[in-house]
Amino acid sequence: MIPEVEKICNDIRAMRIQGAREVAKTAFRALNMEAQATEAVHTQELLSDLLETADELASTRPTEPMLRNSLRYAFSQIKKNKPSDIIEFKEIMAHEEKVFLKNLDLSISAIAEYGAKEIRPGSTVLVHCHSHTVVAILRRTQELDKDVRVICTETRPRYQGRITARELVEAGLDVTMVVDSAARLMLEQEKVETVLVGADAVTSRGDLFNKIGTSMIALSAYETQIPFYSAAELYKFDPATLWGQMEKIEERDPAEVFNANEIPGLKIRNPAFDVTLAKYITAYITEMGIVPPQGVISMVYNKMGIENPMNNKR
Amino acid sequence: MIPEVEKICNDIRAMRIQGAREVAKTAFRALNMEAQATEAVHTQELLSDLLETADELASTRPTEPMLRNSLRYAFSQIKKNKPSDIIEFKEIMAHEEKVFLKNLDLSISAIAEYGAKEIRPGSTVLVHCHSHTVVAILRRTQELDKDVRVICTETRPRYQGRITARELVEAGLDVTMVVDSAARLMLEQEKVETVLVGADAVTSRGDLFNKIGTSMIALSAYETQIPFYSAAELYKFDPATLWGQMEKIEERDPAEVFNANEIPGLKIRNPAFDVTLAKYITAYITEMGIVPPQGVISMVYNKMGIENPMNNKR
Amino acid sequence: MIPEVEKICNDIRAMRIQGAREVAKTAFRALNMEAQATEAVHTQELLSDLLETADELASTRPTEPMLRNSLRYAFSQIKKNKPSDIIEFKEIMAHEEKVFLKNLDLSISAIAEYGAKEIRPGSTVLVHCHSHTVVAILRRTQELDKDVRVICTETRPRYQGRITARELVEAGLDVTMVVDSAARLMLEQEKVETVLVGADAVTSRGDLFNKIGTSMIALSAYETQIPFYSAAELYKFDPATLWGQMEKIEERDPAEVFNANEIPGLKIRNPAFDVTLAKYITAYITEMGIVPPQGVISMVYNKMGIENPMNNKR
Amino acid sequence: MIPEVEKICNDIRAMRIQGAREVAKTAFRALNMEAQATEAVHTQELLSDLLETADELASTRPTEPMLRNSLRYAFSQIKKNKPSDIIEFKEIMAHEEKVFLKNLDLSISAIAEYGAKEIRPGSTVLVHCHSHTVVAILRRTQELDKDVRVICTETRPRYQGRITARELVEAGLDVTMVVDSAARLMLEQEKVETVLVGADAVTSRGDLFNKIGTSMIALSAYETQIPFYSAAELYKFDPATLWGQMEKIEERDPAEVFNANEIPGLKIRNPAFDVTLAKYITAYITEMGIVPPQGVISMVYNKMGIENPMNNKR
Amino acid sequence: MIPEVEKICNDIRAMRIQGAREVAKTAFRALNMEAQATEAVHTQELLSDLLETADELASTRPTEPMLRNSLRYAFSQIKKNKPSDIIEFKEIMAHEEKVFLKNLDLSISAIAEYGAKEIRPGSTVLVHCHSHTVVAILRRTQELDKDVRVICTETRPRYQGRITARELVEAGLDVTMVVDSAARLMLEQEKVETVLVGADAVTSRGDLFNKIGTSMIALSAYETQIPFYSAAELYKFDPATLWGQMEKIEERDPAEVFNANEIPGLKIRNPAFDVTLAKYITAYITEMGIVPPQGVISMVYNKMGIENPMNNKR
Amino acid sequence: MIPEVEKICNDIRAMRIQGAREVAKTAFRALNMEAQATEAVHTQELLSDLLETADELASTRPTEPMLRNSLRYAFSQIKKNKPSDIIEFKEIMAHEEKVFLKNLDLSISAIAEYGAKEIRPGSTVLVHCHSHTVVAILRRTQELDKDVRVICTETRPRYQGRITARELVEAGLDVTMVVDSAARLMLEQEKVETVLVGADAVTSRGDLFNKIGTSMIALSAYETQIPFYSAAELYKFDPATLWGQMEKIEERDPAEVFNANEIPGLKIRNPAFDVTLAKYITAYITEMGIVPPQGVISMVYNKMGIENPMNNKR
Repeated sequence: MIPEVEKICNDIRAMRIQGAREVAKTAFRALNMEAQATEAVHTQELLSDLLETADELASTRPTEPMLRNSLRYAFSQIKKNKPSDIIEFKEIMAHEEKVFLKNLDLSISAIAEYGAKEIRPGSTVLVHCHSHTVVAILRRTQELDKDVRVICTETRPRYQGRITARELVEAGLDVTMVVDSAARLMLEQEKVETVLVGADAVTSRGDLFNKIGTSMIALSAYETQIPFYSAAELYKFDPATLWGQMEKIEERDPAEVFNANEIPGLKIRNPAFDVTLAKYITAYITEMGIVPPQGVISMVYNKMGIENPMNNKR
Repeated sequence: MIPEVEKICNDIRAMRIQGAREVAKTAFRALNMEAQATEAVHTQELLSDLLETADELASTRPTEPMLRNSLRYAFSQIKKNKPSDIIEFKEIMAHEEKVFLKNLDLSISAIAEYGAKEIRPGSTVLVHCHSHTVVAILRRTQELDKDVRVICTETRPRYQGRITARELVEAGLDVTMVVDSAARLMLEQEKVETVLVGADAVTSRGDLFNKIGTSMIALSAYETQIPFYSAAELYKFDPATLWGQMEKIEERDPAEVFNANEIPGLKIRNPAFDVTLAKYITAYITEMGIVPPQGVISMVYNKMGIENPMNNKR
Repeated sequence: MIPEVEKICNDIRAMRIQGAREVAKTAFRALNMEAQATEAVHTQELLSDLLETADELASTRPTEPMLRNSLRYAFSQIKKNKPSDIIEFKEIMAHEEKVFLKNLDLSISAIAEYGAKEIRPGSTVLVHCHSHTVVAILRRTQELDKDVRVICTETRPRYQGRITARELVEAGLDVTMVVDSAARLMLEQEKVETVLVGADAVTSRGDLFNKIGTSMIALSAYETQIPFYSAAELYKFDPATLWGQMEKIEERDPAEVFNANEIPGLKIRNPAFDVTLAKYITAYITEMGIVPPQGVISMVYNKMGIENPMNNKR
Repeated sequence: MIPEVEKICNDIRAMRIQGAREVAKTAFRALNMEAQATEAVHTQELLSDLLETADELASTRPTEPMLRNSLRYAFSQIKKNKPSDIIEFKEIMAHEEKVFLKNLDLSISAIAEYGAKEIRPGSTVLVHCHSHTVVAILRRTQELDKDVRVICTETRPRYQGRITARELVEAGLDVTMVVDSAARLMLEQEKVETVLVGADAVTSRGDLFNKIGTSMIALSAYETQIPFYSAAELYKFDPATLWGQMEKIEERDPAEVFNANEIPGLKIRNPAFDVTLAKYITAYITEMGIVPPQGVISMVYNKMGIENPMNNKR
Repeated sequence: MIPEVEKICNDIRAMRIQGAREVAKTAFRALNMEAQATEAVHTQELLSDLLETADELASTRPTEPMLRNSLRYAFSQIKKNKPSDIIEFKEIMAHEEKVFLKNLDLSISAIAEYGAKEIRPGSTVLVHCHSHTVVAILRRTQELDKDVRVICTETRPRYQGRITARELVEAGLDVTMVVDSAARLMLEQEKVETVLVGADAVTSRGDLFNKIGTSMIALSAYETQIPFYSAAELYKFDPATLWGQMEKIEERDPAEVFNANEIPGLKIRNPAFDVTLAKYITAYITEMGIVPPQGVISMVYNKMGIENPMNNKR
Repeated sequence: MIPEVEKICNDIRAMRIQGAREVAKTAFRALNMEAQATEAVHTQELLSDLLETADELASTRPTEPMLRNSLRYAFSQIKKNKPSDIIEFKEIMAHEEKVFLKNLDLSISAIAEYGAKEIRPGSTVLVHCHSHTVVAILRRTQELDKDVRVICTETRPRYQGRITARELVEAGLDVTMVVDSAARLMLEQEKVETVLVGADAVTSRGDLFNKIGTSMIALSAYETQIPFYSAAELYKFDPATLWGQMEKIEERDPAEVFNANEIPGLKIRNPAFDVTLAKYITAYITEMGIVPPQGVISMVYNKMGIENPMNNKR
């Protein structure tokens, strides 16, 4: 592994490089850097070297699907194109880095486009927490003069709803903030027509891991058949869950909730995410269109270049 | 109306007398004071005077069912006992004040007793906001060595969950606090067996008005059939809703949620209550036992001495 | 049985006296006429005579609960007041006829009042078929300047929705008519907040017999938690269903649907009613207030003076 | 306590007197025997003596609602009739014993009548375990030539379904037996229109304690809206559950399930009952008619003569 | 664009060519005519010309998925086969036209076959409105001597149910017609085992656009788990909905419902379709088999030759 | 057909070769034997011969999907590889037999791996009947020291649960057996977190055919959102159901249930399977990962090499 790649690994670990997208891009770039700098003679040798590098990169964020998927995609392209020599191998890597980066950029604007079309002009949307894709969709509705009203939760304990509120107010939308507990009442009183959230991860079953509280809002929307969408790049889907490896729910610093010293003996829990079952999700808004949760696995299967082991034996 | 009663009216209005129970007790006492001080000769005259006094007392808190019910109860007892002269009238009033006050005290301990028996030893209970009846029930479980664990929400925006947490920790219970949004995840992860809340008001349909967020927790409990109880004195039930007069949902100061000046243009809503539909409520824990929501109206009908107009015509 | 009562029986049978309320009133009046004209000496003798008369009157419309209930009520009052001689017996009958008639008149206006309060100003109500109580409620909202919009179905096959439409338009309401099949779409597109229907009969379980199509609308309202009310006088409830006697669903003339001769071999069915299960009904709007379906039996039990056999044995 | 009553207590304890109805009848008779044999002078003295006797009788079967209810009813009648001397007291006791015994006999035939009317001629009924009231209802349908088909489960582990099968075949019904697991498939394939079970106990919430497996059948019937009835005398309802005292679920001998020695280390559980939630029960078929589960508490309240503490203070 | 193709465009616009299938066939033929008549030298030139022609053809019916899909399919085949010169290009076009036409014919008979096998001999099917695929399926059951009974709705406001009734009676089936409102009662009383409708359009989420009233029938079938099928060629699916472009619900002439002049001031709405959510649909009966709604998108993806943009970059 | 293959056919028919997997393996081997022994000159001739052999093999077990799928897979590989002569044809057959056998072995261990990861350490799993894949998964949890507790049903009428119990106890798991009827109570009392069953067959809609009783357990798990998995090799899926051919539910010997002679006139039914609807199934645990029921058809489509007829016309 060349020193530049080692430095990148350290930077990701130390949180100097942040954000699922940024990390995934940098990791792919690092893999290509390693490939271009190689002194290997046989393609098999280079492949081994890259697999090792990929392991190191993947270990910097063990529960980040987008990072793993970027690396996985790189290898699927190598396998597919079967480079006959090192030169062709490098060309493929260079080309695929460009494709990957471009696709990442395209996917956000595609999601914004698809998402904006799902929202009726003059209607009210409820959002929870902060998500770049959600903000992108709502900005796009504003460009299309859809005159959308937004209800946003404050999102305890870290109040990410305030970031959302600020960005949307600045984009010119009509925004009302409420405490998280008021979400269900707002659905009814404000005649919300769409609930829209981002995604931290998606499983092969179509279940959604997202900010704590998402599942209660989804359940409330489901109760009265209000469409509930998660705007999720397909890279958020982790094929590793094909192998049943369930995501852990991160527990964060209790002090974000309350200073427990004020009530000696009081315990505090601060889980970061909860799981929204596929059956409460109307559809995922992805860069490939509006996909029902149970269909996500097929779309990812196609897009990621994951192979069907039985069709490729010979 | 004698000056002492006028003063009481002013004290209630000015919030110098607070709390639904305290207000109801004081109002009944005032009505009795008025009766004892009367100079009326005919019972009809005294009745007219008391009805006027009751109107004044009721007007001090126009949306408080317990106050109205206490007055209503007084008149139902007068009607039932048909005093033949002023002396008997006064005796009835004096007697019924004592009965009323004693019953109010008894009802809390009855609810604590019934409620405590609904909770399995060693099990976990989730509570929301702060309620005297809920705390009384949980304290009673502690006296019975039931070794109950409690999950309590912080209850934004005013953090009443911290009061609950403090009282329960002091009573020796094992208490864990979470943000309101984590309620549904806690139900699952902590294997909660009972959800327990208080009641601000109950309608003839058995629907519950309670602290914002209650309906989302009830819905989440209903999703996996976890029993959801509201501990509610029957005085919380307002027979006025028989006449379809729906409770308004109070909107409180937005500053409790967020300082809107930080994001110019941002709107804020701060509703105090939401409505939990009867179908999501397992039962009410009342001073007369464990009652299904749809049966509450019959129990109140009996207890309050509300007359069946058709059976008493002659 | 005196000739005047015999004539009344014939008039009811020949449909010269029509409408559930009119028939019930007339039957009670006939029973009183029989009582006043009696030549009996002992009260027991008169009672026997009246029971016979009541049987005859009841047989004129064998499936009409309101008729049966009016007669039942008369006897419950006689039993309760235990007349000691014929004179007192006659007095009771005369008095109770007045009470009964007055109560019938009061009940419609009470229902209108309670019902109107359940409807939010500026909201939209969906109605099906034609019902006097429903029209009374909507007229009352108009008097209260509630500015209610109404969606009414045409109500195939006899288009009773057109009668409703005409009466409501004349009362000044904003009315939109649709085919019956469009009810569910209207609930969503027109953001209907209340569904309101009448009642042909109600069972002890709280189930509703009403115009064909009612149950599909109730189901559609239930799907998105839109409140579904039946405005029903308690006289519509038939205590006979306590004995499990299920109402038959009347099948009407197929020609109302289609001239089957146009397609030889085609069969046609034309059922007049369907059954809406208690669980899809938010509440009944009755003259005694807003009552959940499962609580109706208790209210009727009280009002009708039906006796508890075990409490009256001695 | 006289020796005869002591003997009765022993006989009940030793299971020489069996069956909920038989035990309840005997206990009431014993109470009356004690009263008739009294040497007390003041009614208060006799009352104390009887309360003591009742405690002893109740302790013979601590979890049997019918026994407790029979005793409770006796005291409610004494209280209601306020005997002025010992002679009147004895008369009341003697009279009420007769009333009680007669009512017990009447209630079974009333239930049979009401139940039989709920079953459509030519339809198919599914039953579980063995229940006298269920058999009584089905025999009554046979007397009415209703031509009902019955599916009965075998009811593991003790095969009570075979008793049911035998009794119904002997009564001339068309009976098909299946394993318990086939209940849901039968509901669909045999187009079952009614599910009918007995009741071991009923709570104030309307929940049903009955033979293990009942709740799965109720759930399966609920899935496709097939009416599910429990035929239950109101004596099966235990007002003690008003005080939240939940019934324990009895665990029986594991050997009824399997000889665990055949697989060393294997554990076996053999619970006798499960709980069917009120929401899955269409109605209870009682001696007072067809009652929705949430309305049972009101009916019992009336019938048992349980007093409203607040209305009787003076 | 050659004159013949221009004429075809005009004929489609003027409704001289009608029916989704006929329009799609003609459009494909027109595209081939344009290709065969070309004077282009380079394949790229011809492709440009055809894309322009396709735009013109597509614009004749802007909301018709089958038309757009036929054109889309043509281009996917050109792309896949990569013609090296004009001659090969023309050959491909000629070949694919034949394939397309033949497949259209095959698909109806495939749907009839698959659909007929889903219907149990001797069972009852409920249908709504008129659909060629539904009639084809039911005719096929008749050929297979399945002895199926059919309940058909009249389908207000235009009574298309009468067309269905006539065709099915002529095909020898036992048909009963009811008003639309009676559908739910029929499901129960006639023990319907299958509901079968056609499809106007299907979205990527698996939702169904079909004749007004379909969604209420689907909901009613769902309530008791009666299978609800839509017989839909995959061409009915519009991949454009991948981009979130929601179908508008057409509003037709109010006079079809009622002559509004009869009640001055009365409004009338006449929506042609409603949306049946994927979750209420058991499966689509397609030319490729029985497909669950959430799986439709994958099937279309395959069949239409829509490319995965990420797998084809190089 | 060579004699060895004929013998194999007879052995399968006579149940001398048993078990879905064993039969499928043997059939594939027989097909290869036929190919290797061929004297055909042209590949087309050999193909015809093999198709005939396959028909014979398939007819030995007409309702066994795994057998049909193994043969189907063989032909899809021949078609895909387009052998140019007999030698290559034989090579393909020999190679594919190895691939097929190896994949069958791999798939069980893959399912064990994926399944084991779905089960939380220290949690409780409920299983029904006996299934090799289920036992393999639970053994794998034991190897991973997951300390899983198992509740197993006895599985009337043939008590296959005892086989499961024995195998799991021997594998060192903590196993508790109950009667089938106790499943729902166990879910609640034992806080079961996962229900796990095998699969007899799976339809294109994702519905599961499995041992009688499975659907009631699935419904009970669904009621409280307990994940319900079926561990199913994709070979269990029968593409024939694409053509709507529904599986029959086998009826077995009534004597397994009860000796009907003991109650003359009693009928007995003994269905072997029931159908669990896709909506009650959380996911299938397959050799290709965790797949939602509605996505199974796409996975099979890929894996089985079933061709898209429209994409391969040329």
